Amino acid sequence: MTIRVGIAGYGNLGRGVESAIGQNEDMKLVGVFTRRNPEDVQLLNSDVPVHKMDDIEQFTDKIDVLILCGGSKNDLPEQGPALSAMFNTIDSFDTHANIPDYYEAVNASAKPNGKTAIISVGWDPGLFSLNRLYGEAILPQGATYTFWGKGLSQGHSDAVRRVPGVKGGVQYTIPNPEAVDRVRSGSLPELTTREKHTRECYVVLEEGAVATEVEQAIVTMPNYFTDYDTTVNFITEEELKRDHAAMPHGGFVIRSGETGEGNPQVIEYSLKLGSNPEFTSSVLVAYARAAYRLNKQGEIGAKTVFDIAPGLLSPKSGAALRKEML
Amino acid sequence: MTIRVGIAGYGNLGRGVESAIGQNEDMKLVGVFTRRNPEDVQLLNSDVPVHKMDDIEQFTDKIDVLILCGGSKNDLPEQGPALSAMFNTIDSFDTHANIPDYYEAVNASAKPNGKTAIISVGWDPGLFSLNRLYGEAILPQGATYTFWGKGLSQGHSDAVRRVPGVKGGVQYTIPNPEAVDRVRSGSLPELTTREKHTRECYVVLEEGAVATEVEQAIVTMPNYFTDYDTTVNFITEEELKRDHAAMPHGGFVIRSGETGEGNPQVIEYSLKLGSNPEFTSSVLVAYARAAYRLNKQGEIGAKTVFDIAPGLLSPKSGAALRKEML
Repeated sequence: MTIRVGIAGYGNLGRGVESAIGQNEDMKLVGVFTRRNPEDVQLLNSDVPVHKMDDIEQFTDKIDVLILCGGSKNDLPEQGPALSAMFNTIDSFDTHANIPDYYEAVNASAKPNGKTAIISVGWDPGLFSLNRLYGEAILPQGATYTFWGKGLSQGHSDAVRRVPGVKGGVQYTIPNPEAVDRVRSGSLPELTTREKHTRECYVVLEEGAVATEVEQAIVTMPNYFTDYDTTVNFITEEELKRDHAAMPHGGFVIRSGETGEGNPQVIEYSLKLGSNPEFTSSVLVAYARAAYRLNKQGEIGAKTVFDIAPGLLSPKSGAALRKEML
Repeated sequence: MTIRVGIAGYGNLGRGVESAIGQNEDMKLVGVFTRRNPEDVQLLNSDVPVHKMDDIEQFTDKIDVLILCGGSKNDLPEQGPALSAMFNTIDSFDTHANIPDYYEAVNASAKPNGKTAIISVGWDPGLFSLNRLYGEAILPQGATYTFWGKGLSQGHSDAVRRVPGVKGGVQYTIPNPEAVDRVRSGSLPELTTREKHTRECYVVLEEGAVATEVEQAIVTMPNYFTDYDTTVNFITEEELKRDHAAMPHGGFVIRSGETGEGNPQVIEYSLKLGSNPEFTSSVLVAYARAAYRLNKQGEIGAKTVFDIAPGLLSPKSGAALRKEML
């Protein structure tokens, strides 16, 4: 049985999902849904139709899992509940503080309609969350540390671009190597926000903007920069395009604990990602397989990565997994 | 509800389980079972009775989960099927090649008796297996590399001690740092057995034994050493006791893959363990919680870590996990 997958929303994440489906032989892309004019949407390499998002309810019997590729701020709060009433869904809702409410909203929509919806899938939330959970469950006495980067932060880049006088720019989050080493040593340090990460901005100024003023506005910005050591580099528009178009990211989850009479135990999970959206998309696609299988088993309602047995992610049978991978 | 745990077999692993249960407030140790004379068994710090293994069937209604702490070679092939007919069980069966048969034997025993038995729990098989699976499912185009060490290998230490002329000794498995770096770079190298690990032995000679002969016998031993670069160091019995009594271990699982048009993506999971048996025990105890819950849900038969949703390992509720860890 080939799993028929739909993509709702076609930006970086949607393109990543299209590409990832091509790496999985048990899945096929059957359609892309957009709020733009479908004729304006150019797919990477798939020969499938692009439809209007408004027409999506005509496809409920043609799609086994719909992967929601919209943003957490404006798209998913509405699309998640609406679409999980009609389809099994996967999304990457990543506004950590709002996850409990979002879970309830999606559950209230998916469950009475017999659909399975796995929310907040990706790497954080997602794989990093899993490793926080495994680490704490296995080493109850200890501490968990999450470091992000080096990587391009979308939210912080957006914040930089909203500063008056900024024409364009990106922001990289950089874990402090000394802090990472202290954590790896098992010494269980208490680290301040400032000690854990630094922030590095590359900014193109509007004509006539004053660099020192822009710099000051960035480094003192509440919530985003004021608690960090931030450096601001001014570059040309050409340099921005040439040197900062890639979307690398990554990070570490480290659980440091003790067992017995003080034996140190350190678990580390790390990601080094050439493309953040493509990696997130690859995680979404693996969990789409799980959603399809869970729904077949009658496991309906909202789920998170915590609820998904790892074997459901693999195209291999249980027997093959036990033989080849255990 | 406190989960009542029993320990079957009281060696390094059993002591580790006793200690780990003390770190988990929702569990209590209710008894230890041994094939030795119970009066000869001194527990670390628990005030629970030690019973004869032969009497264990009298305790079926007093134990929620029995953790099997015997060895994979001689104990578990018999104990796993026998005890999973009477109890929910966890074990660390780690003879990789025999896992499929062992799974079938335990399943045939646990299932008709309504018991839940999670086999091959620990870090390899166990957490490393999970990371091999997650890595391959998320990055289908790529390669998985497992490195072990630096750590004391029980099997190889036993092999060294069987060599004529050896009075005592230990063997450390050491990952080759160059090989690890090549894998981390995302270059997908093909590595021979010899390139991945080296082996380091510390040996105490019997009186009259000839060092060069012993060394030769070790480094040319088929299966164990012949495919590796092995160094043999001769030490005194005092040095063996003083410097080589700890049981550190660890290793890495690295999945290196590509997405889209050749973007490299690297996932790395690593363990740095001060005590190998205590860490394995901590994993066993977390999975005991899952076995208890699965059995309550009617999920019976043999399971592996691949079948266990991560949330089942944590004492926290689903809502708390979503709020605090996702």
